[in-house]
Amino acid sequence: MNTNPARGMRDFLPADVRRRQYVIGVIADVYQKYGFEPLETPAVENIETLLGKYGEEGDRLIFKILKRGEGAETGQADLALRYDLTVPLARVVAEYRAQLPKFFKRYQVQPVWRADRPQKGRFREFFQCDVDAIGSRSMVVEAELLSAAGDVLSRLGFHTYTLRLNHRGVLGGMLDAAGVPAEVHGEALVALDKLDKVGRDGVAAELQQRGVPDAGAATLLEFFFSVAAAQQTAAGNPAAFNHDVLGRLQGLLGGTRPEALAELQQIVRLMGPEGTGAHLRLDPSLARGLSYYTGAIFEIAVPDLAGSLGGGGRYDNLIGMFLGDEVPACGISLGLERILVVMGERGMFPGNLATSPADVMVTIWNLDAVPDALRLAAGLRSEGLRVEVYPEADKLGKQLKYASSRAIPFVTVVGDDEAAGGVVTVKNLGTGEQQRVPRGDVAAVIGRRG
Amino acid sequence: MNTNPARGMRDFLPADVRRRQYVIGVIADVYQKYGFEPLETPAVENIETLLGKYGEEGDRLIFKILKRGEGAETGQADLALRYDLTVPLARVVAEYRAQLPKFFKRYQVQPVWRADRPQKGRFREFFQCDVDAIGSRSMVVEAELLSAAGDVLSRLGFHTYTLRLNHRGVLGGMLDAAGVPAEVHGEALVALDKLDKVGRDGVAAELQQRGVPDAGAATLLEFFFSVAAAQQTAAGNPAAFNHDVLGRLQGLLGGTRPEALAELQQIVRLMGPEGTGAHLRLDPSLARGLSYYTGAIFEIAVPDLAGSLGGGGRYDNLIGMFLGDEVPACGISLGLERILVVMGERGMFPGNLATSPADVMVTIWNLDAVPDALRLAAGLRSEGLRVEVYPEADKLGKQLKYASSRAIPFVTVVGDDEAAGGVVTVKNLGTGEQQRVPRGDVAAVIGRRG
Repeated sequence: MNTNPARGMRDFLPADVRRRQYVIGVIADVYQKYGFEPLETPAVENIETLLGKYGEEGDRLIFKILKRGEGAETGQADLALRYDLTVPLARVVAEYRAQLPKFFKRYQVQPVWRADRPQKGRFREFFQCDVDAIGSRSMVVEAELLSAAGDVLSRLGFHTYTLRLNHRGVLGGMLDAAGVPAEVHGEALVALDKLDKVGRDGVAAELQQRGVPDAGAATLLEFFFSVAAAQQTAAGNPAAFNHDVLGRLQGLLGGTRPEALAELQQIVRLMGPEGTGAHLRLDPSLARGLSYYTGAIFEIAVPDLAGSLGGGGRYDNLIGMFLGDEVPACGISLGLERILVVMGERGMFPGNLATSPADVMVTIWNLDAVPDALRLAAGLRSEGLRVEVYPEADKLGKQLKYASSRAIPFVTVVGDDEAAGGVVTVKNLGTGEQQRVPRGDVAAVIGRRG
Repeated sequence: MNTNPARGMRDFLPADVRRRQYVIGVIADVYQKYGFEPLETPAVENIETLLGKYGEEGDRLIFKILKRGEGAETGQADLALRYDLTVPLARVVAEYRAQLPKFFKRYQVQPVWRADRPQKGRFREFFQCDVDAIGSRSMVVEAELLSAAGDVLSRLGFHTYTLRLNHRGVLGGMLDAAGVPAEVHGEALVALDKLDKVGRDGVAAELQQRGVPDAGAATLLEFFFSVAAAQQTAAGNPAAFNHDVLGRLQGLLGGTRPEALAELQQIVRLMGPEGTGAHLRLDPSLARGLSYYTGAIFEIAVPDLAGSLGGGGRYDNLIGMFLGDEVPACGISLGLERILVVMGERGMFPGNLATSPADVMVTIWNLDAVPDALRLAAGLRSEGLRVEVYPEADKLGKQLKYASSRAIPFVTVVGDDEAAGGVVTVKNLGTGEQQRVPRGDVAAVIGRRG
């Protein structure tokens, strides 16, 4: 019988789960410090809720659930697995608008499913960590979201991350300025989004193929090139660099798109040059793939990693698809799976992350003594220790070997002598030391870790 | 556009999520204290992994996922949503046997999906909280599992719970002794499992309908009745009652099934009369619906609640369905959804469970002062506070009203005066008091909660 998990899906054994829970715990803690509240939605949505929201390619990747009863034979599907956390959020905001606060700030850490071809680092079930603020058009929202994501990264040990920032309106102005006709703006953005992956020549070819006039493409790529060169020069001074880029953008846009440019300026000013603000970098070439963004867009980069650890932006129209009314919204999604891979490769998990199932293992001397062993275990647990009880009256050597193999640092032994004297032998498996201590002192001895 | 969650599924708004996380946190903490380790498996399994494991009724309730690409038109399904956490555990044990410890003790808290008809308290997506110990036939396993479940309940505030205990072997002996032919034992167990729901007469009728001879049915029900009567008498002394029941069972079984009876005796002896042992109650009428149990079976009851908060037992053959070899196993599943319902109805959630999204809200005096407000917020967060920043430069009264509506206990105000003096006005929205304090003291003032 095949005992593999399904294709592209993963089992998480205890060591994996602990690492995942550690990262999720940091993310949740930071987001709570920013006033975001937890939301959870079902894995399964009505199929109409999802279809038509992710483009043709996205629709094809949705896992569809077969109707029960009649309809099953004809292959009809009425339900589907969640494809992301943004569309469910939009549905929730529309459904519960009256009972949600004016500014609804939620985080959500849950799995999503996509029937993508599995490959290294790409799975069919993976977690998204989304944080979104609904209800305000103020750039305070963007500044807080970027700061929160930055705080998550530095709490996890990423100290040289970059918060890349651009704006869909500014991008539109750049395309206008380069003479790209409005009807191919969408095509141009899709091509520009690949600059990281395919390089300048690749993008030039793709722009041409997608119907962007050569002169326009050259203007755009020349502008990006000059910005990148300026960045090399200003490496140590991100604030000066951002002001330089704002100036260049103003020059290129020549007075068009004043609101969009003002929003970028505000975000830079609100975040300031210190703290997470020191990680902010305006990047006019940042495009983001998704079509629903309407304002600022972000992407999080760390050195020596192709691709990003997360991204997001403002999407003021998506909720309107469910609600009718437009509701302003802005969010960032962190890529949990990528963060875990990078932290694993770079040895970034804290050393004190539990690698053993227990602080101490209670050995079993003989079957008659088991009730007493269970009482000892209960007492140690009530003092806060994690206690494994060896379940069988095996030879003591075998029990000690088992504790070692499980990396449990201490064992207790209560033989006939100890039982008579009301004491417990505590053995430190790391040092080999052992001592007899009164029953009431065992937790303290172990708590001191020898 | 329909914005409801799918039928039988639920959205969890922040207050719901906090309650769920609180209960799951207690469960995980207690299980870790017993040396259990976390496991997570995918929501989606290969369909062959699930089919044929839950009986005909179970198979019908499995949500099936449509094949992608070819096969989609004909309604073929190759994947399905997890129906419980036990079959995935059996698959995991078979798949990773070589790298798992000899005694694999895992807990798993994840959703499962069943296409049941939704009704009050029954959902199509619900969480199971399973704890299982794999690899030992020792009754220490049963004693530890029962103690752990009992500790969870008392940590949650259930102080009068009962751990009902019976044994499939003893049940078989009782049916033999009552003259029920072996070939209708299965039918008889299904009928007996309904004693709580349909009462003595209902079970008598069902036994007859399922082909159990009348005389046998009468013997069984008479025996249960005498045990129930003895329990009334021994209400204050569960240990004496358990010994009484063991004696009655010995009488009824007349020397048959000695190992099964010895296992019950051992569990009673191991748990002792104190602590969680004081909640243990032998119940010869407990049958459990599932067919895979082979030894001890359990169910957790609390007063004034029909049905149980959880149950489980020993199933020494299930893993063999995947592995070939038999592997002993025993587990308990807690019903998270029922626990939450009962705790809600009985007001059992702790008062300090966060009901507000933040400890303090930073107000915005005017747009120019926002960078300073964000710095104040960053400082308070670094001191451990949860800080909301009002995102817009609304009138102060409107901002205070919003903080009150969100149950945020404090706000800070930094007007031009305060900014000039390097101080912050901290207002306690509960008492209405406000004081000007140096910036560095704000966290301490709020931490003291006024």
